[in-house]
Amino acid sequence: MSSARHLSVALRRARMPKPRTLLRPIPSTTSSLATPARTFNASASHRSGSKEIKYTTHAYPNLKRDPKYAEISSEDVTFFKELLGSQSAVIDGVTTDATDDIEPFNSDWMRKYRGHTRLVLKPQSTEEVSSILKYCNEKKLAVVPQGGNTGLVGGSVPVFDEIVINTGRMNQIRSFDEASGVLVVDAGVILEVADQYLAERKHLFPLDLGAKGSCHIGGNVATNAGGLRLLRYGSLHGNVLGVEAVLADGTVVDAMSTLRKNNTGYDLKQLFIGSEGTIGVITGVSILCPPRPKAVNVAYFGLESYEQVRQAYGEAKGHLSEILSAFELMDGRSQRLVHESTGTKYPLEGEYPFYCLVETSGSNAEHDMEKLEGFLEHIMGEGIVADGVLAQDETQFQAIWRWREGITEALSHLGGTYKYDVSIPLPELYKLVEDCKERLTKLGLVGDDDSFPVRAVVGYGHMGDSNLHLNIAVRQYNKEVEKAIEPWVYEWIQQRKGSISAEHGLGVAKREFIGYSQNDTMLTLMKQLKGLYDPNGILNPYKYI
Amino acid sequence: MSSARHLSVALRRARMPKPRTLLRPIPSTTSSLATPARTFNASASHRSGSKEIKYTTHAYPNLKRDPKYAEISSEDVTFFKELLGSQSAVIDGVTTDATDDIEPFNSDWMRKYRGHTRLVLKPQSTEEVSSILKYCNEKKLAVVPQGGNTGLVGGSVPVFDEIVINTGRMNQIRSFDEASGVLVVDAGVILEVADQYLAERKHLFPLDLGAKGSCHIGGNVATNAGGLRLLRYGSLHGNVLGVEAVLADGTVVDAMSTLRKNNTGYDLKQLFIGSEGTIGVITGVSILCPPRPKAVNVAYFGLESYEQVRQAYGEAKGHLSEILSAFELMDGRSQRLVHESTGTKYPLEGEYPFYCLVETSGSNAEHDMEKLEGFLEHIMGEGIVADGVLAQDETQFQAIWRWREGITEALSHLGGTYKYDVSIPLPELYKLVEDCKERLTKLGLVGDDDSFPVRAVVGYGHMGDSNLHLNIAVRQYNKEVEKAIEPWVYEWIQQRKGSISAEHGLGVAKREFIGYSQNDTMLTLMKQLKGLYDPNGILNPYKYI
Repeated sequence: MSSARHLSVALRRARMPKPRTLLRPIPSTTSSLATPARTFNASASHRSGSKEIKYTTHAYPNLKRDPKYAEISSEDVTFFKELLGSQSAVIDGVTTDATDDIEPFNSDWMRKYRGHTRLVLKPQSTEEVSSILKYCNEKKLAVVPQGGNTGLVGGSVPVFDEIVINTGRMNQIRSFDEASGVLVVDAGVILEVADQYLAERKHLFPLDLGAKGSCHIGGNVATNAGGLRLLRYGSLHGNVLGVEAVLADGTVVDAMSTLRKNNTGYDLKQLFIGSEGTIGVITGVSILCPPRPKAVNVAYFGLESYEQVRQAYGEAKGHLSEILSAFELMDGRSQRLVHESTGTKYPLEGEYPFYCLVETSGSNAEHDMEKLEGFLEHIMGEGIVADGVLAQDETQFQAIWRWREGITEALSHLGGTYKYDVSIPLPELYKLVEDCKERLTKLGLVGDDDSFPVRAVVGYGHMGDSNLHLNIAVRQYNKEVEKAIEPWVYEWIQQRKGSISAEHGLGVAKREFIGYSQNDTMLTLMKQLKGLYDPNGILNPYKYI
Repeated sequence: MSSARHLSVALRRARMPKPRTLLRPIPSTTSSLATPARTFNASASHRSGSKEIKYTTHAYPNLKRDPKYAEISSEDVTFFKELLGSQSAVIDGVTTDATDDIEPFNSDWMRKYRGHTRLVLKPQSTEEVSSILKYCNEKKLAVVPQGGNTGLVGGSVPVFDEIVINTGRMNQIRSFDEASGVLVVDAGVILEVADQYLAERKHLFPLDLGAKGSCHIGGNVATNAGGLRLLRYGSLHGNVLGVEAVLADGTVVDAMSTLRKNNTGYDLKQLFIGSEGTIGVITGVSILCPPRPKAVNVAYFGLESYEQVRQAYGEAKGHLSEILSAFELMDGRSQRLVHESTGTKYPLEGEYPFYCLVETSGSNAEHDMEKLEGFLEHIMGEGIVADGVLAQDETQFQAIWRWREGITEALSHLGGTYKYDVSIPLPELYKLVEDCKERLTKLGLVGDDDSFPVRAVVGYGHMGDSNLHLNIAVRQYNKEVEKAIEPWVYEWIQQRKGSISAEHGLGVAKREFIGYSQNDTMLTLMKQLKGLYDPNGILNPYKYI
């Protein structure tokens, strides 16, 4: 009863004459909680942990360095230094002892993958990338394209001694046209920088994700990042209008159209979207950006069952329709972790097995509030939600989003995390978490005290995209747990025709498992393409292809 | 002055207590005017004209039949008859005299392209398509995939004796999931049939075009059709979730995901979207369909200059934002043609050099009307539009759309039409029409009496997508006019970094001109892909690749 009153209060407040909707551009959702990747650039974080990061070659002993690749020589280093000119463009661990400077480029922010590279190149132009690749292709030197290095599957760090080509110095916004909303950028422009640039011009980057403060747009496109706004603005395959990329032999593919419609042959730029740097290095992107919404609201609900979350989602689609911009699912365990990690008071009074976050973005605050009230009244009247709050100001808006975006960070404090980013048809979306927990519990692996390897099995994700993040928090990475999860989890997903990677990609983590989501014909066609664009296989080897 | 009053009246009416917004599903926009392609299925229309349709081989004398292709033998026909079983699955002009039955498959509805095929196959399953192609590939028999045959560039009809593979009998809706909005269909499902099926389930096909009553979804995807809803719902590259296609050798590519997110390797299905049947035959499609809007409004304006049309578009984006679903441009000449062709009274009192049609689609009729009123008050107050009307009921809604959709039909009564479907950055979008008219006038080619080959130079299109349809109506197809237009028009577009084909594709019509919109590297990569998927070149030869 108290919870229902609680929601009534929120509703009553929302009906006050002055609309409570936040009349402002979309807020930055990047609190310190929300951007785990941010800590990456401080290389200290790589050594501040209790232990050294394990080499990927240790975690994956089956991976062997392919002897077809040349080893980097001092002549190679000299060539690159001459080519790139600037001191800051080459981090040379071959002829100098620059290990400390190189380490941040060798490993990922999750401290899960670590390579052995001794050379990092930071070109500043497409031509420089082309010259680097032409040289590497001729000399058979393997490379790893790297953007903000905020990935979750080890795709942007070397495994052995692959040369890192980092896009950090290719960071210019090339153009923006307010009439069409088309933005053209270098690959190394940071997502948040682009979005702030657009905010000043009343537009919005059609992609948002926790790592926005660090990730590069080129990397976003190379990994086909999904994130928080996909429900509303669609995928990069629809929004990216042009790509500039360099193939392994240095050929510059200029598919940098800024046109919304261009039916003149095969849409080859699409191949680079989501190819994870295995067929080319993206150096530039043009993208269609929508007008920035004038009003944004967010509400947070507690629910008694997953079935009710599904009902709430159906109602949100019906009532909020064109203004629905996010529908996020968080289970009770994930919210308890955020609570324990931050010490923040829960937004609702009781605890619930499920929570969801609903965001609207529209052009008229009053209209949006009316739609939102209709939605709230309905789901409350029908007993679909048990309790809920509606953000009344910017601070509350940020606070509510932190309960969703803070999960990754909260998990990272627990030790290790086995992360599965999967697509599953909605009816069974959360069942994976339940089945996984049951399985690990039966095997005696889950428990509260330190004798159990698994601390928690947690589920959350982008409900609106049928995208679940299954996270298994462990006290330390553990072979027994791994064997209990894999390939079981992939078989479970395959049986439901889901995808073993919804938005994170394959990288090293899922390199062996692509067959659970792609059939043999597709794999053959992918290999054909790889052979066509990178015949020597120098681009991002040891990954999924 | 009278025109301003006219708009005031419309506004006042819109403010009456009962909202005037049409509370109903999106109306079918397929009046007889709007679906020129519909007349196609009556094969009589192919002989009802004053003259026989000229063979493409006459219009393009440079095209020579490639002797590498086998000629169809009676053994081949026997094989296909056995394979497909049904009488209606094979139209055999090889061993019988079935010319009349074959002619509709040989030529297009514009009566502009005509091939010499003597064999039409109508498979009913993906397996049958696979068996056909495997056989043709081994025998080196060339084929043309054909859907509703409503294209505008001669892409779906043979040039010589290519076998037509028509998808008309593959017409099953495979599945629809209301929770996710994902529809799965055979390639030969007619667009309007799918949309009506979705209407009954409160959803909408995210593509709409004049030919919806005849065109097949497989053909829409193969040509990456754009149409009237792209501004709101985005392109097929974003909405198509899965494609099933057969390669030249009969390999079935099953990329029929129904997931909104699936980052497991290269997104190969994208290659088939817009490839015009040159690398595979699409047999199935899965596509994300949005909820059907509950309220739809349409307004029609007269404007004094193109600059004012641009201003009106900017204001529509600002005021109507998430509910703006179409912004169409029509020049005065195009509307006069519709008037003359249909005898319908103009919607506005005076005549104007420019008109635009603005459509909104939303989930709340009152909210939409308020937004629309704000827009109307602003563009009227600022003098951006000279006059305007707002549809007050379903009949008026249909009537207004006919002024836009009836242009193609009105043009077809004039004789021939040279059609250019191009993308141009907005500031210069209409300048192409003006420059073209000036050029042809200076050359003495334009005039009102029959001594001039050109009747009218007309411009209209999807303003919101920077997509102009330039139409040059001629008394008969004429080499002198052709030489005056081409390659001038392509050079004009290239200088402005536009696209020579926004949404219609290349087909035969633009086969020689792709270089104006794609650079040499892109062309090389396209040829590589073509070689990979169709090494014998049997798929849709003599077209753009």
